[in-house]
Amino acid sequence: MTRIGILGYGNLGRGVEKAVNANADQELVAVFTRRDPASVKIDTPTAKVLNVSEITNMKDEIDVLILCGGSATDLPEQTPEYAKYFNVIDSFDTHARIPEHFANVDASAKAAGKTAIISAGWDPGMFSLNRLYAHSVLPNGNDYTFWGRGVSQGHSDAIRRIEGVVDARQYTVPVPAALEAVRSGSNPELTTRQKHTRECYVVAEEGADKARIEKEIKEMPNYFADYDTTVNFISLDELKKNHAGLPHGGSVIYSGSTDNGNKKHIIEYKLTLDSNPEFTGSVIAAYARAVKRLNDEGKTGCLTVMDIAPSYISPLSGEEIRAHYL
Amino acid sequence: MTRIGILGYGNLGRGVEKAVNANADQELVAVFTRRDPASVKIDTPTAKVLNVSEITNMKDEIDVLILCGGSATDLPEQTPEYAKYFNVIDSFDTHARIPEHFANVDASAKAAGKTAIISAGWDPGMFSLNRLYAHSVLPNGNDYTFWGRGVSQGHSDAIRRIEGVVDARQYTVPVPAALEAVRSGSNPELTTRQKHTRECYVVAEEGADKARIEKEIKEMPNYFADYDTTVNFISLDELKKNHAGLPHGGSVIYSGSTDNGNKKHIIEYKLTLDSNPEFTGSVIAAYARAVKRLNDEGKTGCLTVMDIAPSYISPLSGEEIRAHYL
Repeated sequence: MTRIGILGYGNLGRGVEKAVNANADQELVAVFTRRDPASVKIDTPTAKVLNVSEITNMKDEIDVLILCGGSATDLPEQTPEYAKYFNVIDSFDTHARIPEHFANVDASAKAAGKTAIISAGWDPGMFSLNRLYAHSVLPNGNDYTFWGRGVSQGHSDAIRRIEGVVDARQYTVPVPAALEAVRSGSNPELTTRQKHTRECYVVAEEGADKARIEKEIKEMPNYFADYDTTVNFISLDELKKNHAGLPHGGSVIYSGSTDNGNKKHIIEYKLTLDSNPEFTGSVIAAYARAVKRLNDEGKTGCLTVMDIAPSYISPLSGEEIRAHYL
Repeated sequence: MTRIGILGYGNLGRGVEKAVNANADQELVAVFTRRDPASVKIDTPTAKVLNVSEITNMKDEIDVLILCGGSATDLPEQTPEYAKYFNVIDSFDTHARIPEHFANVDASAKAAGKTAIISAGWDPGMFSLNRLYAHSVLPNGNDYTFWGRGVSQGHSDAIRRIEGVVDARQYTVPVPAALEAVRSGSNPELTTRQKHTRECYVVAEEGADKARIEKEIKEMPNYFADYDTTVNFISLDELKKNHAGLPHGGSVIYSGSTDNGNKKHIIEYKLTLDSNPEFTGSVIAAYARAVKRLNDEGKTGCLTVMDIAPSYISPLSGEEIRAHYL
């Protein structure tokens, strides 16, 4: 039984909790929060809710601490810090800063004799694996990643920060013609605008200037300016009724060849997820198995999904895997 | 540079040769054949063609020997035998006999201090990986494997053995309604007949009894009796013109859930391959990297794709992988 702790109880923390409870070989011991623990209700009656200030007191009762904070400010601090006391895993997803985060976590975990995995989830995570497997098997080719149709929480938050906006939901949508061109093996060069569109559902304050809000969204640099964006104003009731979930998904498509380009091969890995945080939490819980096992074997420092043999994330033995999954 | 030997120069051996030559870090040293070497023309001017009787003389000049024989009779003998002298890899694909083959190869490789990987390819191989990853991440769910549309060489051979048949090509075709049902997340129970149909293109001898041939195909146990099979008689010219390639592919679809079944998640891994042997050869060549690396690290015995971290099949460093593929 692997004893799990969760730090941070937002959407992802709740997704991890569900995943841990679905795994017969894992047990949730405690959830740590920055809030008043009395105000946090969790799903697991046997687990404690504790303030983060008590976390190091629990270091001998937890095999793997799962960090469920945000990548912008929480994880760059938390993962290296808690790797001093725990085996840790996070889903750090700022791709450009992964090398720096890796180095910080690696130094901290190695010094403490702990094991860490960073950037576990689906992108980075399962999508990354599929990019690497495909490139390794077929060196001649290109990978394409499409996201959606699904809710981007970062883009939804960006809209909410605009004056006059009560709430918002943003869907990232792959362009069907781009998907088709890639799947055909034609290896197209695609701009940002050609790959995805952005669909926004916005609840405005009564009397707000909707034309201004729409303009501010569509011209927002980085988030929307490079995309074809549609803005739909809806009521709060409609948002709650039709846009309550956090579905997501997407495809990694690899378009490769052999025989000097004469034979084409298309590899597609596609996710269609009812709940982004629950699937991400499930990936993290599976890789928490590998963290524990590698630490038991004396392997310390920081790793990523690329360094983990698939059998290490399975609760099954090598014999069972060979007999039933190979 | 990893020095590669190939034993067996049929479709798969030629596919492996193309893959090795596409990999900048691998060099084909020799092809071993049971035929007269003078009768075998290979694509690689710098490699030798030698009779298999000379194979052990080459043991110090080859880092990894790739076994390209058949699973029915060649590999059960060859892989354990040559693991006494070489690091080896094969694509043994008789699923039910994998545990036995694994044990034989493991004993032989361990005794000799060699490293072996068995059953590398796409099924077993990349499909197996996707079944295991999905089950590990989402313990509640079912996996479905569909093959095709593609040429089954085993079924084509079975037709060729019927009296009056000159040549034949058999395509395995997934049933669209079954694929749709699985992708919808409805977790259907599907019989063999509901999942795939079999399409046969047969060249008959002049004057042969076509009705008898068709009946013999459709009633052949194991191969065709459990499927809806269509038989088309065509000319040899038509066969050569329209059915010369060996395309294949298929999908592993995992239909899983979280939140006690309330949230559904579909994971699909799909291959669309112009050449089955060239893609299989490419997977084997990538895993030959891992064989060499693991042997260099002192890891001996038999392994499968399940035991190999993705980074081990890549020519890139950990830093490069984290910076560009994660």
